[in-house]
Amino acid sequence: VKDLIEQAKRGRRRAIARLITLVENDEKAAQIAITELYRNTGKAHIIGITGPPGSGKSTLVNEIAKEIRRRKRKVGIVAVDPSSPFSGGALLGDRVRMRDLAGDDGIFIRSMASRGSLGGLARTTNDIVKIFDAAGFESVLIETVGAGQAEVDIASTAHTTLVVETPGMGDEIQTIKAGILEVADILVLNKADRPGAEKTLRALRAMLHMDGRSGRRFTEMRHHGDLMAVEIPEGEQTDRSDDWEVPIFETIAIEGKGIKAVADCIEDHEAYLRSGDEWKERELARSRQEIDQLLQARFMEQLATEISRSVRNKVVLAVAERRLDPYSAVDELFKRADN
Amino acid sequence: VKDLIEQAKRGRRRAIARLITLVENDEKAAQIAITELYRNTGKAHIIGITGPPGSGKSTLVNEIAKEIRRRKRKVGIVAVDPSSPFSGGALLGDRVRMRDLAGDDGIFIRSMASRGSLGGLARTTNDIVKIFDAAGFESVLIETVGAGQAEVDIASTAHTTLVVETPGMGDEIQTIKAGILEVADILVLNKADRPGAEKTLRALRAMLHMDGRSGRRFTEMRHHGDLMAVEIPEGEQTDRSDDWEVPIFETIAIEGKGIKAVADCIEDHEAYLRSGDEWKERELARSRQEIDQLLQARFMEQLATEISRSVRNKVVLAVAERRLDPYSAVDELFKRADN
Repeated sequence: VKDLIEQAKRGRRRAIARLITLVENDEKAAQIAITELYRNTGKAHIIGITGPPGSGKSTLVNEIAKEIRRRKRKVGIVAVDPSSPFSGGALLGDRVRMRDLAGDDGIFIRSMASRGSLGGLARTTNDIVKIFDAAGFESVLIETVGAGQAEVDIASTAHTTLVVETPGMGDEIQTIKAGILEVADILVLNKADRPGAEKTLRALRAMLHMDGRSGRRFTEMRHHGDLMAVEIPEGEQTDRSDDWEVPIFETIAIEGKGIKAVADCIEDHEAYLRSGDEWKERELARSRQEIDQLLQARFMEQLATEISRSVRNKVVLAVAERRLDPYSAVDELFKRADN
Repeated sequence: VKDLIEQAKRGRRRAIARLITLVENDEKAAQIAITELYRNTGKAHIIGITGPPGSGKSTLVNEIAKEIRRRKRKVGIVAVDPSSPFSGGALLGDRVRMRDLAGDDGIFIRSMASRGSLGGLARTTNDIVKIFDAAGFESVLIETVGAGQAEVDIASTAHTTLVVETPGMGDEIQTIKAGILEVADILVLNKADRPGAEKTLRALRAMLHMDGRSGRRFTEMRHHGDLMAVEIPEGEQTDRSDDWEVPIFETIAIEGKGIKAVADCIEDHEAYLRSGDEWKERELARSRQEIDQLLQARFMEQLATEISRSVRNKVVLAVAERRLDPYSAVDELFKRADN
């Protein structure tokens, strides 16, 4: 593994690919690798791109990657597609279109179908981002379907989050996107040549306005609920009534239109983050979220080791048959784990 | 609380409402209440209804509830709307339309905006379902937006899961819905008078066919990944090449059209489940999932008690600044929690 990491750090594609495979398939090996290369991370600009299926998100990511590449930065792409937790990787066949990016050593693409849980996906995504980072990719794009909260979380661990919309969502947009819009640093209306673009644009502007949003990101709110054992210390919370106004861009990704402006804005946002405390804060938020995820996974593993499967199944059966209530069941399992 | 539970069991609306409020706002009280009433649960038929925003899902739920009610069963409704984790309950204003259900003691509706995390929502939803169940509601409908995996999970803990689609999703449907379709016991094409209905219907049929699905539900796959410490023991896994063919219904919920057929089918599915091992299996799956969720929540609470906030923040900071890698951080927090 050490040798692999050394080679990956020097940007060797085969080593990077092998490390990623390792991280996807072998949790123990992943742990060793990440522990080893972690100190080389922290340089890359991590960009999350999220939007509904059919929004042309992948094409957009493609084009943005090419544009960033023209600006002499190396680009890593992690495409997360959890839309089919059951049928696996079949949907990713269209990644073939990524062919026009191949042959360039400065771009590396990794698609991930769901490997079951979004928790698992989040870990794997985090790890792959680190591999890219340590291997010297200056920009890392994370593409997610962004339909539910969990996917939004994956994207919102990025430094810069793009939310992609399309025209023609009409009035429904108001119910659909409230939550997702609020993680956006940059809004992109793709397929902007379609009918209804003007209307959707107005709706998006109205929503941003309604929220009183001019770029405020509620980092503390992104750590929501049960998952958060570790809170942001009060002293470290900044007043986020800061200066970033969330802009809206129109693009026609399939024709490469509007991409340059988006790439410019991504650069602007990076500069904005790095000029103040925001960069550090987002790093804190990312670390906090990752640690919580790992803690939970670790705890469930430990439980599985300490309490035999037959005992666990007996408890589940007792709950299903109403001989035991779920809270008392958890008490019992906890007690057993302590002995 | 005991008195409240006694009254709720006798179906007193005010007691039910107060119990629900308790469960939503006070985790400790929830635990006591649920422990107390759990043995009275297990009778209700739990029906999950999930679909994208704008699919007319709420109207459909409304109409189905009225139809079930006509069949002399009491109906409880839990409407989960996590689409806006930030702006809270505002979107639920349209629940006013539920007014025509009011005044009937046999129907009880509870809307929940997001209270932060989907984990929290899942717990609260589970608890409210139990309250309805213990209070003698024979049918409990859980309505979720069903955009992401987590929401799908909430719905798929039901005995019977309806997935709602609308016409006009065109070819995109193939990428969108693969995962969600696979939790469906019953498919409903709502707004079936809209253009493109025939095409969408064909697409849905093709997908079901493509999957080789004739009603198979992969219970074991629904317990995916990290969350599952407790697995289905091999002996208990049944071969799910069983007899339930997933049917597709066309409805125009806003005009009440097609609802009876759906209600009939819901009854059929219940009968089907109760006639074999499926009912018991779904109860096992529900219990398993709930126990896992509670275990994780409990663990994070315990961690928060045992390790001071300042220690946790120091660890997070060290990780953010690359002085410590996340895996070692988790090791350290774990060690501290053990002492």
